[in-house]
Amino acid sequence: MHPFDRALILGGSDECAVGNTSADYANMVGPFGGVTAATMLRAIERRSDVLGEPLSLTVNFLGPIADGAFAIVVRCVRTNRSTQHWYAEFTQGGISMATATAVFGLRRPTWGHAEPDAPWVAFPEDYDVLDFPAGIAWLQNYEIRFVSGGLADIDGIARERSETIQWIRDKPARAIDFAALAALSDSFYPRIYRRLGRMLPAGTVSLTTYFHADGASLAAQQSEPILGVARGQSFGLGFFDQAACLWGRDETLLATSHQLVYFKT
Amino acid sequence: MHPFDRALILGGSDECAVGNTSADYANMVGPFGGVTAATMLRAIERRSDVLGEPLSLTVNFLGPIADGAFAIVVRCVRTNRSTQHWYAEFTQGGISMATATAVFGLRRPTWGHAEPDAPWVAFPEDYDVLDFPAGIAWLQNYEIRFVSGGLADIDGIARERSETIQWIRDKPARAIDFAALAALSDSFYPRIYRRLGRMLPAGTVSLTTYFHADGASLAAQQSEPILGVARGQSFGLGFFDQAACLWGRDETLLATSHQLVYFKT
Repeated sequence: MHPFDRALILGGSDECAVGNTSADYANMVGPFGGVTAATMLRAIERRSDVLGEPLSLTVNFLGPIADGAFAIVVRCVRTNRSTQHWYAEFTQGGISMATATAVFGLRRPTWGHAEPDAPWVAFPEDYDVLDFPAGIAWLQNYEIRFVSGGLADIDGIARERSETIQWIRDKPARAIDFAALAALSDSFYPRIYRRLGRMLPAGTVSLTTYFHADGASLAAQQSEPILGVARGQSFGLGFFDQAACLWGRDETLLATSHQLVYFKT
Repeated sequence: MHPFDRALILGGSDECAVGNTSADYANMVGPFGGVTAATMLRAIERRSDVLGEPLSLTVNFLGPIADGAFAIVVRCVRTNRSTQHWYAEFTQGGISMATATAVFGLRRPTWGHAEPDAPWVAFPEDYDVLDFPAGIAWLQNYEIRFVSGGLADIDGIARERSETIQWIRDKPARAIDFAALAALSDSFYPRIYRRLGRMLPAGTVSLTTYFHADGASLAAQQSEPILGVARGQSFGLGFFDQAACLWGRDETLLATSHQLVYFKT
């Protein structure tokens, strides 16, 4: 079983999923936020009464999640004809660690277009796979190839722009699904590192992902690398935001994502 | 009393705010989504135990809100040293109509920068105030001056780009606050109108606003017009997204906002 699927194993009931954090996706403090978001999405996806596919997911991070057992209380707030609204709460020892709201629904064919052009980059194979230091577990489970704005730019020199472009996929390769896409939207290193040219304490406070691809379009991506583009828009007063686009190798805009991040200079 | 303040009058208790929808902010079906978002934010802001200022607000719209009475159940999910997490549910006759999660917190001085440049536009006074048809109540309470991508572009001709730039403020003028900023982030006409050059059924499903300005910086804007820039990124399968920036006249990036919108061609 793939480590990502192992991390998303849930027991319990429809109303209260239970699981354990995975050492494979440990971050400096607690698990990688992306895997927490994916786990909360999965707790909804696996519900027997789920309607359609994920359209939108917002996860707020309330405090550092401890390694070990957790429970996710999942409540269907409302089911409409074509959309369904969810609230979920990730708890440990009765203390809330994360909340999620999600919109699921049925998609139907309409006119469509991705308005930004996919960035003009070379094939993933043309970029080196990053060799991460062994210290951070979750990074060992991703194959990241920086196109621009990589870790080499964290060199003590402040920069004017925060954009990073990266090819990324699970390691070992794994066919992408909505949960993996939710995790990928949190896979960029903090934009403040890139602006200030150094690492500093930072943590996501709120993460929203809009899923634009349907299941069939996601399946067509197979396990090919995803092209991610992330940039910050506003930095100040202890917080910054990040806007990201996730593209398939076939130039399909699979998801757009935003997050608000706490930082300490 | 300003119509916006009147619309946000809430009674009831800390745990359950009660109010009535305002005819001043009626939309085609139910109230303007921006005023619903503002009302949910206000239901948290007015809590006796609130910590600091709004940092992030996500409102999901579950179904058409009826004119009349509503209740907002407000729950403080967790209070940390410098952040506080909220969940709120807007109900009518016991049926959930909207959910909100919000992060509040204390800001502190840090390095800061707005990364995109404010758009290069003329002063608000150099653009004509839009004269809206009387049919839609909420629009009568805003002074909108289109810089580009205005309603004149909904002329039956499809376009390649969805951007709209507008100067906007409450009418009559009103000093901006967080609730007003939440409402303004939903004040752009649907991006799909601009792409397809025609009006069609569309409604916001999920709206997120990140507040980058603190209360002092907002107060400094007084009642000057706000410069809003909105564009879509992905259109298809019955949904599109919108990314927006809201700038003060002094070129402060006050808020960034995103929404997912349902549409029907």
